[in-house]
Amino acid sequence: MTTPRDNLISWLRDAYAMEGQAVSLLETQIDRLEHYPEALPRLREHLRETREQQAAVEQCLNRLGSDPSALKAGAMKFAANMQGMMHAMASDEVLKHALASHAFEQFEAGCYCSLTAAAEQAGEPEIARTCERIMRQEQDMGHWVWEHLPQMTRTYLERSAVGAEAKR
Amino acid sequence: MTTPRDNLISWLRDAYAMEGQAVSLLETQIDRLEHYPEALPRLREHLRETREQQAAVEQCLNRLGSDPSALKAGAMKFAANMQGMMHAMASDEVLKHALASHAFEQFEAGCYCSLTAAAEQAGEPEIARTCERIMRQEQDMGHWVWEHLPQMTRTYLERSAVGAEAKR
Repeated sequence: MTTPRDNLISWLRDAYAMEGQAVSLLETQIDRLEHYPEALPRLREHLRETREQQAAVEQCLNRLGSDPSALKAGAMKFAANMQGMMHAMASDEVLKHALASHAFEQFEAGCYCSLTAAAEQAGEPEIARTCERIMRQEQDMGHWVWEHLPQMTRTYLERSAVGAEAKR
Repeated sequence: MTTPRDNLISWLRDAYAMEGQAVSLLETQIDRLEHYPEALPRLREHLRETREQQAAVEQCLNRLGSDPSALKAGAMKFAANMQGMMHAMASDEVLKHALASHAFEQFEAGCYCSLTAAAEQAGEPEIARTCERIMRQEQDMGHWVWEHLPQMTRTYLERSAVGAEAKR
């Protein structure tokens, strides 16, 4: 038997670990994006958002009398799996990286969608509002990547056709 | 130097391999979904769609004088990475599986969004139309999973609270 509150705490810890992965991913992307400088402002903005999200998740855990430092085996495993997934998806190619980012933002949005429902079920409307707010930010970022995919593809193909080092 | 056509062929092979992974994933989900029978019709429909998508991608390759059997190292690696990702994300928990599916459909949609732009760039409007059609199907499936996440979360929490074996 696991109460909605227990599940909520466990999933918020997963979310905290996930945001840690998101920070690493964004930092790597920002370092690599030399040929697509126009994407940098939005990525830097989302890096800032992501750090705020991690802090907000920590506050939700505190509100429930818990904290992220007490990471359970489950959350650690989740973080390791997430890292494995990102490594598997991310390649040197900027385009594959963008595809991975888009899917990752959607994955995050889904986690917060589920967390919002869980917080409501656990009678924690304030946590539900926080999770819903983060969900919208992840959706917005995912949508931004999506909107830029056609142009990134064309730029990649043009660089690739002239033999430019388009991998990054 | 790599022409848009070369890249298009290479990415269509990736897409063919990806659809193979999608078939395996859906088959596994359909087998496991004993406690959520209401989801089965949509999953079975998407399994049928996915098989049709793989055949459509093969026809695109044929149109370009290529075929999926000549899988390059790149496509094999892509398929292996995809499999690794799905293994990493998929757990026995129906909810984590749904979150992974949602992200995977969005990943597929992103690949076809990029493929559509690549086919246009390569002067292949018919292939672009096929890729755009598949992109919409992946978006629709992703959206369907998204719409069902809150209810799946509530069902999971209710089963979990009474100690039911809610993992599947």
